[in-house]
Amino acid sequence: MGLSSNRVEDLSGHACNEGFELPISNHEPLEVHKVCLPPHKTTLQKLRQRLLEVFFPDDPLHKFKNQTCLMKFVLGLQFFFPVFEWGPQYNLKLLRADIISGLTIASLAIPQGISYAKLANLPPIVGLYSSFVPPLIYSVLGSSRHLAVGPVSIASLVMGTMLSEAVSYTEQPLLYLQLAFTATFFAGLFQASLGFFRLGFIIDFLSKATLVGFMAGAAVIVSLQQLKGLLGMTHFTGKMQIVPVMSSVFQHKDEWSWQTIVMGVCFLVFLLTTRQISTRNPKLFWLSAASPLASVILSTLVVALLKSKAHGIQTIGHLQKGLNPPSMNMLYLSGPYLPLAIKTGIVSGILALTEGIAVGRTFASLKNYQVDGNKEMMAIGLMNMAGSCSSCYVTTGSFSRSAVNYNAGAQTVVSNIIMATTVLITLLFLMPLFYYTPIVILGAIIITAVIGLIDYQAAFRLWKVDKLDFLACLCSFFGVLFISVPLGLAIAVGVSVFKILLHVTRPNTSVLGNIPGTQVYQNLNRYRTAVRIPSFLILAVEAPIYFANSTYLQERILRWIREEEERIAANKETAIKCVIIDMTAVSSIDSSGIDAICELRRMLDKRSLKLVLANPGGNVMEKLHASKALEAFGLNGIYLTVSEAVADISSLWKTEPELPI
Amino acid sequence: MGLSSNRVEDLSGHACNEGFELPISNHEPLEVHKVCLPPHKTTLQKLRQRLLEVFFPDDPLHKFKNQTCLMKFVLGLQFFFPVFEWGPQYNLKLLRADIISGLTIASLAIPQGISYAKLANLPPIVGLYSSFVPPLIYSVLGSSRHLAVGPVSIASLVMGTMLSEAVSYTEQPLLYLQLAFTATFFAGLFQASLGFFRLGFIIDFLSKATLVGFMAGAAVIVSLQQLKGLLGMTHFTGKMQIVPVMSSVFQHKDEWSWQTIVMGVCFLVFLLTTRQISTRNPKLFWLSAASPLASVILSTLVVALLKSKAHGIQTIGHLQKGLNPPSMNMLYLSGPYLPLAIKTGIVSGILALTEGIAVGRTFASLKNYQVDGNKEMMAIGLMNMAGSCSSCYVTTGSFSRSAVNYNAGAQTVVSNIIMATTVLITLLFLMPLFYYTPIVILGAIIITAVIGLIDYQAAFRLWKVDKLDFLACLCSFFGVLFISVPLGLAIAVGVSVFKILLHVTRPNTSVLGNIPGTQVYQNLNRYRTAVRIPSFLILAVEAPIYFANSTYLQERILRWIREEEERIAANKETAIKCVIIDMTAVSSIDSSGIDAICELRRMLDKRSLKLVLANPGGNVMEKLHASKALEAFGLNGIYLTVSEAVADISSLWKTEPELPI
Repeated sequence: MGLSSNRVEDLSGHACNEGFELPISNHEPLEVHKVCLPPHKTTLQKLRQRLLEVFFPDDPLHKFKNQTCLMKFVLGLQFFFPVFEWGPQYNLKLLRADIISGLTIASLAIPQGISYAKLANLPPIVGLYSSFVPPLIYSVLGSSRHLAVGPVSIASLVMGTMLSEAVSYTEQPLLYLQLAFTATFFAGLFQASLGFFRLGFIIDFLSKATLVGFMAGAAVIVSLQQLKGLLGMTHFTGKMQIVPVMSSVFQHKDEWSWQTIVMGVCFLVFLLTTRQISTRNPKLFWLSAASPLASVILSTLVVALLKSKAHGIQTIGHLQKGLNPPSMNMLYLSGPYLPLAIKTGIVSGILALTEGIAVGRTFASLKNYQVDGNKEMMAIGLMNMAGSCSSCYVTTGSFSRSAVNYNAGAQTVVSNIIMATTVLITLLFLMPLFYYTPIVILGAIIITAVIGLIDYQAAFRLWKVDKLDFLACLCSFFGVLFISVPLGLAIAVGVSVFKILLHVTRPNTSVLGNIPGTQVYQNLNRYRTAVRIPSFLILAVEAPIYFANSTYLQERILRWIREEEERIAANKETAIKCVIIDMTAVSSIDSSGIDAICELRRMLDKRSLKLVLANPGGNVMEKLHASKALEAFGLNGIYLTVSEAVADISSLWKTEPELPI
Repeated sequence: MGLSSNRVEDLSGHACNEGFELPISNHEPLEVHKVCLPPHKTTLQKLRQRLLEVFFPDDPLHKFKNQTCLMKFVLGLQFFFPVFEWGPQYNLKLLRADIISGLTIASLAIPQGISYAKLANLPPIVGLYSSFVPPLIYSVLGSSRHLAVGPVSIASLVMGTMLSEAVSYTEQPLLYLQLAFTATFFAGLFQASLGFFRLGFIIDFLSKATLVGFMAGAAVIVSLQQLKGLLGMTHFTGKMQIVPVMSSVFQHKDEWSWQTIVMGVCFLVFLLTTRQISTRNPKLFWLSAASPLASVILSTLVVALLKSKAHGIQTIGHLQKGLNPPSMNMLYLSGPYLPLAIKTGIVSGILALTEGIAVGRTFASLKNYQVDGNKEMMAIGLMNMAGSCSSCYVTTGSFSRSAVNYNAGAQTVVSNIIMATTVLITLLFLMPLFYYTPIVILGAIIITAVIGLIDYQAAFRLWKVDKLDFLACLCSFFGVLFISVPLGLAIAVGVSVFKILLHVTRPNTSVLGNIPGTQVYQNLNRYRTAVRIPSFLILAVEAPIYFANSTYLQERILRWIREEEERIAANKETAIKCVIIDMTAVSSIDSSGIDAICELRRMLDKRSLKLVLANPGGNVMEKLHASKALEAFGLNGIYLTVSEAVADISSLWKTEPELPI
């Protein structure tokens, strides 16, 4: 106690003891702690650290540290091909679990594959192709143990929408197929590059709020589109906005076929009921897992038996037997539609990635292991690039099938291999069985799948917790319904980013008071027990001080002072002599911010008010030092805590005769 | 001491005493303070407060509170027409000062007006018109006492560039004039709307860094463009990028006129020398203020006397006598060029506004009064709208003339009236005198004016203080030089916004330690005296937790725990049992952030690690409460300070028999 010490440390010093030369005052009955600068670093070191933090926050190579060369090679192999990690420990018990879960998801994957391909306006067989090659590739490269890979509704929908607005499958089937494979190629390229360049954080900008709204909007649109199949119509709009779709439904009422409607409604009720039962009782998961295949078989039998009478019901018809044909030669890499293919690839790729990563993380956290987002992106990207060369379209980890996979007891990605094998057998031998499968059943399967995407409870939670999040959710919902998928998403991302900017542009400021008996200073408005310290005005700023808010903060602080002076004048209290700004929450400052602080200091100086900073962070101290602002504040200008500032300045006033103001 | 108390307050309670029902534990030998929730507010109240903070942060109507009706009327009049505020106190002494400064700025305004009009590819007389009407309007509406209003280089340049790229003045003079007045109208409308809707903070997004780079780039381009006049060339590109301008200079070498070059260089040296002297010795400000007029007079005399011999030197020629003609009928409000006029108006309007507001604020802070940004915007906007109807183009407060005005002792906006009167006399009687004024002298005046905009010292300061600010500065500099003015600006604003987003996406996290003898916890890396507390890992998060960083923070915190565990294993210290997150700097949280925190808690629970939050802000507490996450943390999960958390949890461990982990 009673020791005086320098408060500002030199940049070059290692320890706090090596002081920054400032005049030392002679009083100070209290212990006052120095505000240290962070250890000195060169620009290059700082840049390196910053880049590491941006691109390698998870330090993915930490396992390689202090290892022998051989071990590094083995770890590297495991790093790039996770199969080498779990492969050696694989045993029969795990295999049995994987076979059961693999067969379960195959029974779901086959009808879903056919349906989702239809959603993307692609021939049904492409959906089966996409359930064969990508799962095999993922099982070698992927690090999630529970992800069930294949086509998913959202990506199929987006691809179908975006391509159909320019090219019609019925008119130019070859061009449409070419564009779909090209878009898949670019989706894969984009996904793999995000992973490779460690830019995975970009998908974080699709916030949960945005996705809730987007998925609900997409589900509504998709369900309405399925009215074509459910009503048995042949003429229908290719557009995806709600208005043209609804007018399309009622324009050709004469095409409605009652046989189709009856069949569709029956199976829809069946599917929704089993889904509802499984949701309520997770042990009965197999009910909803098996019901699509059961519906397909049942409806195919019904149509095959009644084929003479049910000519109103459209069926899938002839499907070619055989494995995925190569499609490398079908990639459309130059021509007027290339920008469309790239755009479609990027939008569907990013949505597929978002679903895949989210699903992977969800199940990983349930089983307490971690998936590396960037590595997953590379795996999904490579699987799509390979898929685009083998007649597959965009695939990713599907939420519905992964949940079934998890519930069926899957242990490793081998369940994906089992599923792919089952699809292989189907492709080779069972294709003729789909000849009489009615198209209406695919619509019912799609509606059942997407209706689960409408998460109104999540939307309600958003409303309760954060109104701006809810606004982003609404924007993406209505944007998708009334404008278009990419624009709706863009608006929602814009709202989310605007929220961040708004927070920075208009940060919270509050007046602090002391909580009696402690050295804690807290918001007077929040802590009724907190009391003001006479002669002091203590303000907290709760955001980095940037160009975007420096003017605002300057004006706001002046307003706080004005209001405090008005209050004091009304209550006849002691006038303010010192303004303390608690900088604890000011995590960063830029040149405009420093200018604003310095100008504020000058303005208050002219009004004989002292401006003091409490607890500026390392970053802020460094910049104050670099800009020479630190010297302007000097001793008695920067303190470690508010309480030390109050104690020290009060004691200063007691020892010094007061200057006439 | 020894009292136990609930730590979480009910939303409905007024004081902290009304507790939120949570089980109260029986030990606690220490005083532990409650973490209060902010007072309860309805959604509507919150929205109102938020909107007030966004749009009325300066509480512009505070003067009207508790006033009589008559007083309110007077204050209202003063609010909208500041002339009523200073008018009644105006006296002869102030008038004398204003006359001197008014005449001084007039001597600068006339040559600058002619030159800047040329910069905008407009006839010289428009520059004089613009120095007459707008200053008069500003003197009634404006709240700055030192702003000297008229055309400025940046806005002139931007308007000239953007319009010339679509329409050539030499080919379609009438259309060009129409577009210029229309752009001015939209500039004014935009400026006035920004002020009216209190969106003035939008100009804050043109950060200082952006402006430093932009102005330097513009100065280089403008100076190079003046080579046309300085070399006496007649063929020259209308483009503004550096490459076409330089190739233009050397393509028509045969047009270079030595008489023009000699004269131009002589006067350029004269102007730069007087400018340099005035910069070094502010008392000699009149030297640089008078030199443009002196140059104009001198060069006109030289040309007039040597007219038979100096036919290589181009002169201004005939200028029409008389006042501003009305130009309301020339506004181009429909047609193919309307979008161009609107775009030009918005870009030049926002730049003019930035300069005007910055200049007004600078001189206001020197004389210790405040200008209301939003009111200034309305004044500048209305003055431009009126200007567009009286043959004026975009005007604002000019930095160079305001500085001269200030130095010449201006006291009120009356100096603008004096200047306008002088311009009026010039327009009515002195126009024929400009007949022999050589165009080269205008180029020299422009170069002298804009060369002061290259602030390399500011750029160097940016480099030293903030590398990303410097990057924004470079982007706008090179963007303007090589691409175009609006795109260069857009890129720089993009970089600035990216900086904010980067800070949110990758926030600082650090390990804290206790500073011995205090209850202060600080960054271990920065405070070498700080020590770790055994069994605890204390982390600080220095940013709001949002969708954009929730995944990152989760992974980063897990990495901190992993690294700490590795360090502990290497040093054989006590294992961590509790992770405390210091939330002081977490100024906000959204639904994704809450999910991330809750999931982190679950993950750590599975590893038998306790997760505790210290000092969550009011905002954060409210959202934790709304999302029910608060209940999950419960007692012993949220503390007011890190030191209370450490003390309370340690004492808990001592009293409770340790559970087997």
